[in-house]
Amino acid sequence: MADFTVKPIPECGDNEYKEVAWGIEDKDAKFKPMWINRPKVGDNDVRFEMKYCGICHSDVHLGLNHLGGSIYPMVPGHELVGTVTEIGPKVTKVKVGDNVGVGCIIDSCLECGTCEQGDEQYCEKGGNTHTYNSMKTYGHVGGNQETQNFGGYSGSNTVHEHFIVKIPDHLPLDTAGPILCAGITMYEPLRHWGATKEGVKMTIGIIGIGGLGTMGVKQAKALGHTVYAISTSANKEKIAKEKGADAFVVSTDADSMAANANKCDLIINTVSAQHELSHYLSLLKTNGTLVQIGLVPQPHSVNQLPLIFGRKSISGCLIGGIAPTEECVAFCAKHNILPDVQHVEAKDINWAWDQLVNVNKDGIRYVIDIKKSLENKDFLPQ
Amino acid sequence: MADFTVKPIPECGDNEYKEVAWGIEDKDAKFKPMWINRPKVGDNDVRFEMKYCGICHSDVHLGLNHLGGSIYPMVPGHELVGTVTEIGPKVTKVKVGDNVGVGCIIDSCLECGTCEQGDEQYCEKGGNTHTYNSMKTYGHVGGNQETQNFGGYSGSNTVHEHFIVKIPDHLPLDTAGPILCAGITMYEPLRHWGATKEGVKMTIGIIGIGGLGTMGVKQAKALGHTVYAISTSANKEKIAKEKGADAFVVSTDADSMAANANKCDLIINTVSAQHELSHYLSLLKTNGTLVQIGLVPQPHSVNQLPLIFGRKSISGCLIGGIAPTEECVAFCAKHNILPDVQHVEAKDINWAWDQLVNVNKDGIRYVIDIKKSLENKDFLPQ
Repeated sequence: MADFTVKPIPECGDNEYKEVAWGIEDKDAKFKPMWINRPKVGDNDVRFEMKYCGICHSDVHLGLNHLGGSIYPMVPGHELVGTVTEIGPKVTKVKVGDNVGVGCIIDSCLECGTCEQGDEQYCEKGGNTHTYNSMKTYGHVGGNQETQNFGGYSGSNTVHEHFIVKIPDHLPLDTAGPILCAGITMYEPLRHWGATKEGVKMTIGIIGIGGLGTMGVKQAKALGHTVYAISTSANKEKIAKEKGADAFVVSTDADSMAANANKCDLIINTVSAQHELSHYLSLLKTNGTLVQIGLVPQPHSVNQLPLIFGRKSISGCLIGGIAPTEECVAFCAKHNILPDVQHVEAKDINWAWDQLVNVNKDGIRYVIDIKKSLENKDFLPQ
Repeated sequence: MADFTVKPIPECGDNEYKEVAWGIEDKDAKFKPMWINRPKVGDNDVRFEMKYCGICHSDVHLGLNHLGGSIYPMVPGHELVGTVTEIGPKVTKVKVGDNVGVGCIIDSCLECGTCEQGDEQYCEKGGNTHTYNSMKTYGHVGGNQETQNFGGYSGSNTVHEHFIVKIPDHLPLDTAGPILCAGITMYEPLRHWGATKEGVKMTIGIIGIGGLGTMGVKQAKALGHTVYAISTSANKEKIAKEKGADAFVVSTDADSMAANANKCDLIINTVSAQHELSHYLSLLKTNGTLVQIGLVPQPHSVNQLPLIFGRKSISGCLIGGIAPTEECVAFCAKHNILPDVQHVEAKDINWAWDQLVNVNKDGIRYVIDIKKSLENKDFLPQ
């Protein structure tokens, strides 16, 4: 798509401070160090020194304007982790020195029905405000209201306390970032469809054994469920079972599909390439639900007969609200469900994006070591 | 489709009795009176004299072999209502003289998980046994086990007590039959998705304002919900509002659709012609569900983005189990939610089927007055 917006960064305002960041000037540009403006701390704001920021595959999609509507210059990153350095006078959620994170959203209206029930991601007033590649919308982000929001590939950020997630002390900070994105993306459908309730035991299918899928397998297993890993590729069986899957279904093998018909109460579908969605309905029990997590812009061809004759559902789910995100972080910390991370420095971001596009190593999440990147001084703005 | 089975009716066995019925010898035949064999009463069986049997549009589909696999001769009818004349020694549910009904199913395994939770219609062992156009399967239907089951266009039937539905005394018997089919078809999604729970108030959309749709509007309204009637045709507004709809949406009018976006918690879709299913997702609130009731064999093109960005679901629902059917009958009796019926005699069945195929009068259900048909003696087997 060709549509995008360019909004050059203005002079730093009185209500802002300058901060180091790494961003791109347009979709064809390479990452470079740049100065951005961050909001000074307001009454309800939390400023934190960035320690790590995860690199998510959707950073690449937005950076390269795959969905259209990207805003440049762009500083990506929605897996922010750091330590609080300053809080506004009305902040009660955290104190200076606490470890905190920020995930995919930094604002929503906080007044509508969905916000009030803790589903800020579905804000009915006008949608949530993404951590970057978005404009300031509801007034909970300070600074110059005419400039775009910048993400976590940066030295610090200042965010309204509502959107701050506390990170437990014993969770390794470098692994916390991906939990705020991949972790909650898998945890939220488990939670919403009842799989995190005390005493509930289900059979849960996970389609796609990549970064999201392996996280889902670990979470579902830690919750005590029977876990079916489902993949087009038989050679994913080893990794799926290593991560805890009880059974493995090869979706391209008719015998494997038939042998596992009517087994799952809930299936979470992480596939984001075009695929035959209806194909997987046979794996659901009566009353089962297939939840889509992976974005596929092309429409699916869906035969409604299996839905009617088995009261099955096709649904979708988008990250999670702030309270469920905190619940997910605490759950992952307790059960030691940590993403497999590989540290990179800011100067390696271009390389990491290439890896995501061209190599896509099983389940590895690249995490920018911000502190080291700043200390090395070899990739900083003038 | 060309596939069908012919299973001529054998001599009446020792465990059977002869009964008058009206049936068709093949898909091109007209209705004629015929003798069929019915099971004699076994330990758990209930025999009842038929008073009325509703004519459902799906009788026409099965009679004309529209879905393939029809079994001839066929005696249709899955809206049976009558009075108990004999019960087996182990029957506890009803006594002689009680009014009873039988809906779409007369057997299921009664042992599997779904049967045990009262969802006999989804029997996991091998599906439910339809009241006609089916073979005897699980042993709860007596008589010759090699013959097909015959429906309610007949003088009596004998059915296992589990599949007998008690009809409250004050419910007019001629209206009870369609409640066992159209009534439960609309009630079950309301029940399953929480709309029959005490104190729950929802906004409920009903797509298609025909026989099923008007029944749904009346039920949802009687439950205290806000009801949106949704139709392609603006001229359905009058009937929809007469039946109790609070609002009317013309689905072919972009302004009407936009004005009613994000309004419904639950939408029940009765449309059984090919249509653009995704079109209706915009009317759902976050977390809303669109339930399909009308059978459309052609696959739908479904864009998953509204599902993901609003945690919306597409589901389906098939009649209801026996206990929910009894609950539905009691509910309709209490709130005087009666289908609009028109009596016909057995000799008029051919005419009534033509009406269903060619005229399709809004919401009228034709009901065979069995007693009158037998008394008139002008359309009985030799």
